[in-house]
Amino acid sequence: MSLPLDLTSHPHRRFNPLTNSWVLCSPHRTKRPWQGQLEVSPTINLPEYDPKCYLCPGNTRAQGEKNPMYKETFVFGNDFAAVKVETDIGRMNEAEGEANDEADEAPSLFLAHRVQGVCQVICYSPSHNLTVAELSTTSILSIITTWIAETLSAQSLPFVKYIQIFENKGSMMGCSNPHPHGQIWCTSVIPEEPAKELDSMKRYHDKCNKCLLCEYTRMELGKKLERIVCENASFVCLVPFWAIWPYETMIISKRHITSLVDLNQEEKIALADIIGKITRKYDNVFESSFPYSMGIHQAPVDGEEHVWDSHLHIHFYPPLLRNPTVKKFLVGFEMLGEPQRDLTPEQAASRLQQCSETHYKMKSTSSQ
Amino acid sequence: MSLPLDLTSHPHRRFNPLTNSWVLCSPHRTKRPWQGQLEVSPTINLPEYDPKCYLCPGNTRAQGEKNPMYKETFVFGNDFAAVKVETDIGRMNEAEGEANDEADEAPSLFLAHRVQGVCQVICYSPSHNLTVAELSTTSILSIITTWIAETLSAQSLPFVKYIQIFENKGSMMGCSNPHPHGQIWCTSVIPEEPAKELDSMKRYHDKCNKCLLCEYTRMELGKKLERIVCENASFVCLVPFWAIWPYETMIISKRHITSLVDLNQEEKIALADIIGKITRKYDNVFESSFPYSMGIHQAPVDGEEHVWDSHLHIHFYPPLLRNPTVKKFLVGFEMLGEPQRDLTPEQAASRLQQCSETHYKMKSTSSQ
Ligand SMILES: [Zn+2]
Ligand SMILES: [Zn+2]
Repeated sequence: MSLPLDLTSHPHRRFNPLTNSWVLCSPHRTKRPWQGQLEVSPTINLPEYDPKCYLCPGNTRAQGEKNPMYKETFVFGNDFAAVKVETDIGRMNEAEGEANDEADEAPSLFLAHRVQGVCQVICYSPSHNLTVAELSTTSILSIITTWIAETLSAQSLPFVKYIQIFENKGSMMGCSNPHPHGQIWCTSVIPEEPAKELDSMKRYHDKCNKCLLCEYTRMELGKKLERIVCENASFVCLVPFWAIWPYETMIISKRHITSLVDLNQEEKIALADIIGKITRKYDNVFESSFPYSMGIHQAPVDGEEHVWDSHLHIHFYPPLLRNPTVKKFLVGFEMLGEPQRDLTPEQAASRLQQCSETHYKMKSTSSQ
Repeated sequence: MSLPLDLTSHPHRRFNPLTNSWVLCSPHRTKRPWQGQLEVSPTINLPEYDPKCYLCPGNTRAQGEKNPMYKETFVFGNDFAAVKVETDIGRMNEAEGEANDEADEAPSLFLAHRVQGVCQVICYSPSHNLTVAELSTTSILSIITTWIAETLSAQSLPFVKYIQIFENKGSMMGCSNPHPHGQIWCTSVIPEEPAKELDSMKRYHDKCNKCLLCEYTRMELGKKLERIVCENASFVCLVPFWAIWPYETMIISKRHITSLVDLNQEEKIALADIIGKITRKYDNVFESSFPYSMGIHQAPVDGEEHVWDSHLHIHFYPPLLRNPTVKKFLVGFEMLGEPQRDLTPEQAASRLQQCSETHYKMKSTSSQ
C-alpha cells in the first residue's frame, strides 16, 4: 500500500540525465507574497534604426570600424572578446596543457591552463526594433544559414574544439543592446555544460546502445504530449521533465543528427519554423517581449568521433515567472544547495501550448 | 622555451577542485561599454521598526501568527516552505526511493523521488534597518548560537540528511524583505552542491590522505597572502583561486572541523568576528549595502561518517561588479557553456584587502 508519487502535488526531486544533476520541485507552493524588486518593463517603441546603436547598418563600432549596409545578417569579431586567438600559435602550443600557479605544489588545488578562442557577434537583422519572435521564417532561415557558415569556418581553425552559439535577449538577461543579435564563441576547450552532456550521453549509449535524446524524444511523443509545446516534421519543442527555469524549453531534432552542418534544406526550414513558433509563443505568455538566454548544443569539433554522444538541440532559458516584471532568482538554496522550482514543467508546457503561434502584435492584423 | 601562463593577462581556465568544475577567466578584457539595465539602488533610510514587516517583533505573519517581542534572534517555520514534513511518515517511507513517471519506461530518463523537509526562517535582529555588516560581534554570535541550536534540533529528526543554512541579502538577490534574516532548509536528501563537494573531498582524501580544504588553506596562507582577505586565530576569509563571482569569498575554519556543532566557544566568537569583518568590507567596497547569497557547508547528518570528506566553510556569492548598480549576469555562455569572469580573484582580493574593517557608516563616529 505505497503512496504513489504525485508529481502535481508532492515535493520531489527530478533527475536531469543530460547533465547528471537534480532539481527540486515544490508544486504545492501557493503564490507567495512579493515585496521585492520589480524589473523595469522593456521599452516598447524602439526606432527601426538607431544612430547610436553599434549594431545598426552603417554605424561605427567602438574600435572605429564601420558596419556595412547589411540586408540580412552580419557577423563581426567581438571587440571585447572573452577569449582570443594567440598571435604566436607555436608558443601557445608549447604552453598548453596543465599549468600550475606554483610548480612546487600539489597540482590539483591550483590548476589553470590557457584558453584560445574566437568570439563573434551575429546581427540577426538590420532592423533595430525587431526580435526573433517578429522575424519571418525566411529571416530566421538566414540566421541559421549564417550559423552554419560560421560553424564551417570555425571548424577549419585547428585549435577550435567547440563552437558555442548563443543569444541573450532582454536587459533582464544582461543584454546591453536591444538590436537583435547573438554570439558565437569558439574555444580551444569543450566548456563545462556540453562536456557534462557529452559524458552523460556517452554513458547512456554505452549502457543501452541508444542515443539518450532520441530515446527521450520518442518517449515524450508517446506520452499524451503533456510536455510537448509544439512540433513539425523535423523538430519537437518541449519543456524537459527536469527543467529548472519556469518556461524552459528544448528544441530537439527528430532525426539523429549531431550538428547544424548535418541539416538538410527541409530541416533548415523546419528549424526556422519551430524557432519562430516558440519565440512567438514566449512573447504571447505575458504579451510582452520575453527575455531568455538561448544556446545550441552540438558535437564538438575536436577531431574525435561524436556520433552517439551528441544530438543537435537548442536550450531556451527564460527567467520570467509570474508576469513581465517578476523573474525567478537562482540564489540562496539554488546556489548553495540545488535548483528549485514551484511551477511544474507540465504546468508550464500547458500554458505554452495554449499560447498562440501568432505573435500578439500581429493579432489585430491577422485573421488567425 | 615555453611561454609561461600569466594569470594576470592571458585568457585561461581555472579548476575548482571542490565542485570538480571549471571557470573561464578573461583578465585581458578592458571595461566594456554598458548600455544595459541599471539596478535600483537599495533604499537607504529604513525605519528601525516597520509595522508592515512580517519579520518585525510583535507583527502578524501571513498565516495569522504573531511574532514575539524577540530581543536577539527569532526562528519560525516558513509559511511557504519549498519542502515539508509528511504527516504520514509510514506511507512516505514506503513510497521513498526511485519512482518513475511511468513504470514501463527506461528508469533513467523520467526519474523522480519524493523529498521531505523543514524550512525555517531566522530573524537575525529585532531591528528592521540593520544588516549583518552593522551588527555587533555579540549579535552575530547570537545568530551563530541559533544556527547551532537549529542544527542540533534538525539532526534529531530521523528523515533529515542535510541542513542548509543560507541568507539572501538585497533585492538584487531576490530578497523580498530588508529585515535581516536567513533561512535553514533541512532535507531528506543531500543537495547537489554539497554532494559534489563531498564527492571531491572524498576522492582527494582517498588519494592524498589529507583534507582538501585543510591543504588548500595551508597553501593559501603560505602564498604571500595574495587571495587572503582577512583572518583571525580560528578562521581565514579568502577569494578562492576558482571563484566565479567578482567578489566571491570563502570563510574556512583553520582547525579541521566538519560542522558548526564542533565549534568551541573561542571559535564561535572568532566566527562572529570574521563574518563581521567580511560583511563590513563588502559594504565598504562601494560604500553601499552589498548584496549576496551566503551559505554554510558542513557535514551531512545522514548517519554516515564524514570526518574527511567535509570541512566547515561558508560561501559568499555577491553579484556586484563595477558599482552598486551594475551586477554580473550568469547568462548566455555561462548558462550554455561555463562560468566566466574578467576581474581576477587576485584583483578582487586586493580590493577587499584595502577596504576597511570598520563600516563606512561608522567612519564619522569612529577614530579608526
Ligand atoms: Zn541597432
Ligand atoms: Zn522588519
